[in-house]
Amino acid sequence: MRIALLGGTGDIGKGLALRWAHDTDHELVIGSRNPENARNKAAEYTAEIEARGADTKITGFENGMAADRAEVIVLAVPAYHIADTVEEVSDSLTQGDVLISPATGMKRDEEGFHYHRPGAGSVTKLVVDAAPDGVAVVGAFHNLAAGRLGDLDTELGIDTLLISDDDSAKSTVGSLAEEIEGLRTLDAGGVANAAEVESLTPLLINLGMNNDSISDPGVRFQ
Amino acid sequence: MRIALLGGTGDIGKGLALRWAHDTDHELVIGSRNPENARNKAAEYTAEIEARGADTKITGFENGMAADRAEVIVLAVPAYHIADTVEEVSDSLTQGDVLISPATGMKRDEEGFHYHRPGAGSVTKLVVDAAPDGVAVVGAFHNLAAGRLGDLDTELGIDTLLISDDDSAKSTVGSLAEEIEGLRTLDAGGVANAAEVESLTPLLINLGMNNDSISDPGVRFQ
Repeated sequence: MRIALLGGTGDIGKGLALRWAHDTDHELVIGSRNPENARNKAAEYTAEIEARGADTKITGFENGMAADRAEVIVLAVPAYHIADTVEEVSDSLTQGDVLISPATGMKRDEEGFHYHRPGAGSVTKLVVDAAPDGVAVVGAFHNLAAGRLGDLDTELGIDTLLISDDDSAKSTVGSLAEEIEGLRTLDAGGVANAAEVESLTPLLINLGMNNDSISDPGVRFQ
Repeated sequence: MRIALLGGTGDIGKGLALRWAHDTDHELVIGSRNPENARNKAAEYTAEIEARGADTKITGFENGMAADRAEVIVLAVPAYHIADTVEEVSDSLTQGDVLISPATGMKRDEEGFHYHRPGAGSVTKLVVDAAPDGVAVVGAFHNLAAGRLGDLDTELGIDTLLISDDDSAKSTVGSLAEEIEGLRTLDAGGVANAAEVESLTPLLINLGMNNDSISDPGVRFQ
């Protein structure tokens, strides 16, 4: 399968690209608004995987061209850019494509990070509202600490939660996620349940800030 | 130490009472609006612990009298009753007492459970606002599935998160919590961070509803 990572030059995009490149045979397309940045990062990730003795195919393109080349598109951009990014690439999306929304809205005060719930109800719902007809949306990968995800020497051993109103797309993303070693998926229900999933991200950051015993914490439900 | 469990006839109160009675030497006081119910439950919990060959001291009283007898008071009542319960027992609270708030606000739709954030910002903050001066408030035990907590044959192996603006009270509650076998505490920061902790409860219920692989799920941060 071809997976595009829009905003794939950022931390979470990098982490997912490296993990998929290392653990699977999927073809990865790094997207960025600046195609040169995308190509540079694709080369950097390729070098890191090849240094580990593995083969991989990672290319880099401007976001729209990246989306055009893939069937699954991860929106690895900040929440406040996510609807614009979907609109920007909408001509490149075709019926049956799957958009993955890993973003969450946060604000910070002196005490820590807090979920900043969009008026639409959740960031996932923002993406649903912006997506063209026939393009499915799945919320996933919200709760992966980027530092840990991007360090291939660190075992994950954590869960990621899936949110979607489209069971087939949810199953596709679930399979892709579980091909990453040490990552388990759990079904968190439909898009109406997205806010509770997105709220977990600021909580994880607050726990990392307040406890020396855990850093870059992930979560395991048991 | 003497610990009162107001609403200790309900599921979460029962679970905490049984765990503390079984794993520690603390004196437990079950509180209820109806003192006869409290006495009956105290006898029932005592019988369950004694059937396991352990000694314990559990008594039952009307909520105000239960609060009067204890230094640590768990408000094991629904979120919509919690402020009233604090007011009801406020004459029984003295300087240095610690109130524990395990409640969360939830509403349900067809898709699942959702965090219903009180106007005050969180249920924990409602308790802070209702508590008399000099009485500390700690949010804890939000994310313990009652069924699992109340079944002494089930190992916990999960985390509970502590929220407070009073470090000394937080430390007292942390110690009491970790005396329960298999329960680890993590510091989630001050009361401003309570909403993210309280939001985890509906998420856990949604995960239990949508995944056959986990029931009564708890959470471990790692």
